[in-house]
Amino acid sequence: MASVKLLGDEELCPQARAVFDDIRATRKNDFVNNFWRALAHDPVQLERVWSQVKQVMGQGALDPLTKELIYVAVSIANNCEYCIGSHTAAARAKGMSNSQYHELLAVIALASQTNRLATALRVPLDERFDNPPEG
Amino acid sequence: MASVKLLGDEELCPQARAVFDDIRATRKNDFVNNFWRALAHDPVQLERVWSQVKQVMGQGALDPLTKELIYVAVSIANNCEYCIGSHTAAARAKGMSNSQYHELLAVIALASQTNRLATALRVPLDERFDNPPEG
Amino acid sequence: MASVKLLGDEELCPQARAVFDDIRATRKNDFVNNFWRALAHDPVQLERVWSQVKQVMGQGALDPLTKELIYVAVSIANNCEYCIGSHTAAARAKGMSNSQYHELLAVIALASQTNRLATALRVPLDERFDNPPEG
Amino acid sequence: MASVKLLGDEELCPQARAVFDDIRATRKNDFVNNFWRALAHDPVQLERVWSQVKQVMGQGALDPLTKELIYVAVSIANNCEYCIGSHTAAARAKGMSNSQYHELLAVIALASQTNRLATALRVPLDERFDNPPEG
Amino acid sequence: MASVKLLGDEELCPQARAVFDDIRATRKNDFVNNFWRALAHDPVQLERVWSQVKQVMGQGALDPLTKELIYVAVSIANNCEYCIGSHTAAARAKGMSNSQYHELLAVIALASQTNRLATALRVPLDERFDNPPEG
Amino acid sequence: MASVKLLGDEELCPQARAVFDDIRATRKNDFVNNFWRALAHDPVQLERVWSQVKQVMGQGALDPLTKELIYVAVSIANNCEYCIGSHTAAARAKGMSNSQYHELLAVIALASQTNRLATALRVPLDERFDNPPEG
Repeated sequence: MASVKLLGDEELCPQARAVFDDIRATRKNDFVNNFWRALAHDPVQLERVWSQVKQVMGQGALDPLTKELIYVAVSIANNCEYCIGSHTAAARAKGMSNSQYHELLAVIALASQTNRLATALRVPLDERFDNPPEG
Repeated sequence: MASVKLLGDEELCPQARAVFDDIRATRKNDFVNNFWRALAHDPVQLERVWSQVKQVMGQGALDPLTKELIYVAVSIANNCEYCIGSHTAAARAKGMSNSQYHELLAVIALASQTNRLATALRVPLDERFDNPPEG
Repeated sequence: MASVKLLGDEELCPQARAVFDDIRATRKNDFVNNFWRALAHDPVQLERVWSQVKQVMGQGALDPLTKELIYVAVSIANNCEYCIGSHTAAARAKGMSNSQYHELLAVIALASQTNRLATALRVPLDERFDNPPEG
Repeated sequence: MASVKLLGDEELCPQARAVFDDIRATRKNDFVNNFWRALAHDPVQLERVWSQVKQVMGQGALDPLTKELIYVAVSIANNCEYCIGSHTAAARAKGMSNSQYHELLAVIALASQTNRLATALRVPLDERFDNPPEG
Repeated sequence: MASVKLLGDEELCPQARAVFDDIRATRKNDFVNNFWRALAHDPVQLERVWSQVKQVMGQGALDPLTKELIYVAVSIANNCEYCIGSHTAAARAKGMSNSQYHELLAVIALASQTNRLATALRVPLDERFDNPPEG
Repeated sequence: MASVKLLGDEELCPQARAVFDDIRATRKNDFVNNFWRALAHDPVQLERVWSQVKQVMGQGALDPLTKELIYVAVSIANNCEYCIGSHTAAARAKGMSNSQYHELLAVIALASQTNRLATALRVPLDERFDNPPEG
């Protein structure tokens, strides 16, 4: 069971209701998933998180699918079961193929391994990697 | 200082030397970074990790830059300072622009935040996200 | 299912029974939660953990509710589902209001985000923050 | 060295400059620490993170020192060296005493320990902890 | 539910089937656990992970039970519920006694605690610990 | 620099001094490493942590070197640079060979990888692994 009641549409305060309306309009989809129904107890936080999602996850210098893959990778490294489930589904909805999914997992598995090895060995960063780019 | 001595080329055993030769040939670059010089004490592990890098990070259903971005994201979530430094440099070398870098960080920041919120609220996965695809 | 059987009162060895008695007396409550029933297989560890809880979580320079909020925050960052559930309940029992709960989550969400950004950017600590206080 | 150049005041674009002005005005202090100088390469992210800090960390249902303690706790659990250093300093500036600091560490140490034990033992959440509060 | 369908023996492609045959032959046991049934969608990854398990987990300078204990410890620190369950069972199958299990947990609990204290206090490594061994 | 001043022997309060005396007597070694010098500001915590180290790390059902390997593994998974350095040195002092060290790293690398794969794939625990042993 969730730590808070998942709010139905009829239980939303007007500020939360407005965010839900925007979620539906932005996604062109009537479905609002449980994450938002849990967050809706705090409409200020709900609005802040949703507006960040809207700003960050759309088309930019990176395309939406690439962003979704990064999101899934972080969620796996952070062990968030809900986010793994929901964002893997989102990535599929945005076009992730089975082959892309397998490659995503392969990169995550590889990085998880080398991360621990480099940490264990306390490898110092090579000088040539340690200078920030201009501009 | 590293947990082990970083091996110079002249200190490598023949099996490690062969891996270094392959790293240089594959990357078309004489430079071999510190990670491999620390791993080279265990040539079996060196060979295993390098062959995995070679298999996983090349062109596939995902392109090499996308894979590198995923690698950086995992390294940040896992707090591996060496890997953050070296793979951010690798991503730039593969063409990551400043805008792409900023968007990468924005996605990681967002996911880190929502990961903890979903975990805190123990949000149950929506039924529609909880069915594996066919095939 | 737990990794070990959760022990009922009648299954406790005398040393574990004595710890359970102290838990009940200290909390003025007959209920002993599952964590202790799993730990009770190793009465030495049970006694060590319980005595640390007793020493640390009471009134001191920080009040018990503040300590409980810190406990919940760490449990969320460490992804311990049991601890999130039980210590969120404990915080409510010690008086945490809904508004305080929402602010707790907002701080955790913010810190999770800035933690990863500072790590990603490998920001060096400002000199003025890097000197330990006297005494 | 940081992953990006830390920007001096004279290197800021107008949007970043405006955020720095607000940081200085809000804190009534001319000093702007390195975190913001690294973030300033992406003025949109800079503005978003700063506005969240401003909204979240002020007086609310929890007082600013309690929030700072929670921030430090999360930063320790997330292993962010920069954030540990800067927010421990911030907590001291907001009045954290040595005794409070020691108790903060004691709670974090205790929770880190019980988190892993509960995870290892896969303890199921007690039914009485598993119901969200009304409202 | 898993993120992918767990494949039955009759659903395996020939390459995955060959890996399953090797798992069964190596373990002298017909049972193949769910982890491999999920991985089997990507036979290349399946083969890579299995061959690594075979190389690493057998008798070497460390005996198989010691390796299994290390595996369980890492899985607990990484919060992998599946791996905690399956490798705790594997450790028991390799002869881990109840006393050894309790001591394993005690070491993990202790290290989890001192890890966070050393991180919080930003303790610098003693010079005498900071020199790699010869050879 | 550490978050607190590392205390010299002449700066210890009597209670901390007594713990240092016990550390020296137990280890039959005059050297007291930095971790204890940082903890010594809070003699209650110092005493609690040291007495736990003494209880847990000695000979038991597991031998001291095996415990030290587990300690190093947890410290790597938790990213504690100080603990990795000091406990790798401790493991060598207790007889860890180079081959054992390489195998330790290989197990950690493998587990880190499979942990993330099992988490990503949300693999359900096999029924046969999910029953606690008798007794």
